[in-house]
Amino acid sequence: MKKIAVVLIGCGGVGRHLLDHILSTRSLQANQGVRLRVVGVCDSRVMIVAPDVSIDELGDELLSQVCRVKYEGSSLETLQNFGNFHLSVGAEVMKKITHIGALLGRSTGLVFVDCSASLETIGVLNQAVESGCCVVLANKKPLTSSMEDYDKLVSQKRRIRHESTVGAGLPVIASLNRLISSGDPIYRVIGSLSGTLGYVMSEVEDGKSFSQVVNAAKSLGYTEPDPRDDLSGMDVARKALILARLLGRRVNMDSMKIESLYPEEMGPEVMSVEDFLLNGLPLLDKDIQQRIQKASSNGNVLRYVCLIDEARCQVGIQEVSRNSALGLLRGSDNVLEVYSRCYSQQPLVIQGAGAGNDTTAAGVLADILDMQDLFHS
Amino acid sequence: MKKIAVVLIGCGGVGRHLLDHILSTRSLQANQGVRLRVVGVCDSRVMIVAPDVSIDELGDELLSQVCRVKYEGSSLETLQNFGNFHLSVGAEVMKKITHIGALLGRSTGLVFVDCSASLETIGVLNQAVESGCCVVLANKKPLTSSMEDYDKLVSQKRRIRHESTVGAGLPVIASLNRLISSGDPIYRVIGSLSGTLGYVMSEVEDGKSFSQVVNAAKSLGYTEPDPRDDLSGMDVARKALILARLLGRRVNMDSMKIESLYPEEMGPEVMSVEDFLLNGLPLLDKDIQQRIQKASSNGNVLRYVCLIDEARCQVGIQEVSRNSALGLLRGSDNVLEVYSRCYSQQPLVIQGAGAGNDTTAAGVLADILDMQDLFHS
Repeated sequence: MKKIAVVLIGCGGVGRHLLDHILSTRSLQANQGVRLRVVGVCDSRVMIVAPDVSIDELGDELLSQVCRVKYEGSSLETLQNFGNFHLSVGAEVMKKITHIGALLGRSTGLVFVDCSASLETIGVLNQAVESGCCVVLANKKPLTSSMEDYDKLVSQKRRIRHESTVGAGLPVIASLNRLISSGDPIYRVIGSLSGTLGYVMSEVEDGKSFSQVVNAAKSLGYTEPDPRDDLSGMDVARKALILARLLGRRVNMDSMKIESLYPEEMGPEVMSVEDFLLNGLPLLDKDIQQRIQKASSNGNVLRYVCLIDEARCQVGIQEVSRNSALGLLRGSDNVLEVYSRCYSQQPLVIQGAGAGNDTTAAGVLADILDMQDLFHS
Repeated sequence: MKKIAVVLIGCGGVGRHLLDHILSTRSLQANQGVRLRVVGVCDSRVMIVAPDVSIDELGDELLSQVCRVKYEGSSLETLQNFGNFHLSVGAEVMKKITHIGALLGRSTGLVFVDCSASLETIGVLNQAVESGCCVVLANKKPLTSSMEDYDKLVSQKRRIRHESTVGAGLPVIASLNRLISSGDPIYRVIGSLSGTLGYVMSEVEDGKSFSQVVNAAKSLGYTEPDPRDDLSGMDVARKALILARLLGRRVNMDSMKIESLYPEEMGPEVMSVEDFLLNGLPLLDKDIQQRIQKASSNGNVLRYVCLIDEARCQVGIQEVSRNSALGLLRGSDNVLEVYSRCYSQQPLVIQGAGAGNDTTAAGVLADILDMQDLFHS
């Protein structure tokens, strides 16, 4: 039985589901001849660590309790009576993580899994890579920081996976990596990578007003509490940047063209959410409607896309053919079209649910298990 | 630099393209820190082998000559003046392969790549697996033989890849493997896995007669020389069987429901190709047309699908929703819809060109490189 040591950073929605998946796939892991040995779990404030990370693990019962506690919104500190572990708090957490990385990176091997949404993990992750550890990310931010940080993070290409940073568990990164490794040059990638914006664009296409659709999406729970967090395009831009860098482009967030679906004067610093929904949004209806009509007169539809080709790395509204996978997309599915030497006339298309904690966590688990050959029995 | 020894079985269309890809990606391999060291190449009759397979390789110049010779339809024997290698002929070839497998399997490691279309490689492949070798298949037949042979072949799950047996280079197997390893239960897989039959079904949907479309497909070079080889559904059935077994189903070819698009009395033993095209095919037009009309009255379209769920593993014509990825499919692309816990409402969809030597060979190369962590520097 091959044991793979895991440290989990972030046990909110995705992280909690990952622990759940790890627990529920114990026999499947055994069939594959591996066991994921969770040696540490932390959130932004508290870390619990197995007594001796070289040999011990946090027991399955304890991990269930972590899931319960995080589900309830309580602190990991409330677990103090649930078994034998070390607890670190505050500034000690990052030190502890670095220490474990240094200890296990060069001995048994270790996978750092970042399921947080934090900008601040990049430091420990880069140290982990230097220590010879593996890294799996659901967190987009470490990959969208400076090129210098990015280069460090991916310097050991076989030791980093981040499928769930784009399209949740959809096999987007894995598929692009297959094309890249086989020398099939990728000319163009275009896709709808926001379930929210995909839903909005296909609904307005059906004749509903933009303001009406955004309000409906909010009440369906499809948007962030402030829908402008979706409408700004920043989340899609992060995904686009990750894909562009994967394709070898040396590009930064601030050099990307990012179209926001609301103007600056309706920004969060100027208007409250309520004010925006009630008084701001309706002012945008006419413009969107005109753009839809113009596209329609060209036989096209509008999608909020991420587009990467040799000249461009951008996100925004674009006309696409009504009969393309993108044009045919309905609802909140993600879709990516990839054009390469092998897929030149018709693209390689990957489509499906691109959000959800369950799916995202499943993608993370697949990434971890996909690195099993780097570990020894 | 990690060296991965490769023996290539079959250097017709796909094999020749694979050698081409190996040669043209030398610098890409170096960037990944690997070098594919081709130590042997054979067709059905002749094998050329590096002088000492433990350290030597067939030089790049020689491999280019192999590509040329096979492209011209000549024998590998004509290469005798192109460098230093050992040549085996006839019955010696299989013995030589087994010998190399035994020699390298437990020392440097070795990947056997089967790009033939032969039923007869299963023996050496199973011996190779026993010797600890890795196996990459574009050849479907070793995977569609008896369950006993299958079990042996896949007994070392991390040491076998066969992406290019289904949908050419489309990331179908890799994506299913990710779902399986992460414990996402797959309820249903349905797809169009024949470019030829996909083309035929979407054309007849547009109102053309079946016989007209099959004749057109033949003159476009979309079909086998005898179109009945496509219309029988046997090729799709092999792909379905491979997917079903990947999903853990214990099923054999002879227990599968396979719908042929022509009746037995129009089979190759009864009618010549010409007779079939001229006199047989038109007799089938009316039935297909009626089925299309019936489907249409249900709001559906007909596709020739592979369908695997808990109860069924079958290939044949089926009504599918006009708005599903399958229903929207046009032309010769392949498409696969996967339903699982994570993709329950809307399927995970993978779509694109599912044929072509270039694409198939690229899938094989990606498979080989994906196993690099099993090899040591």
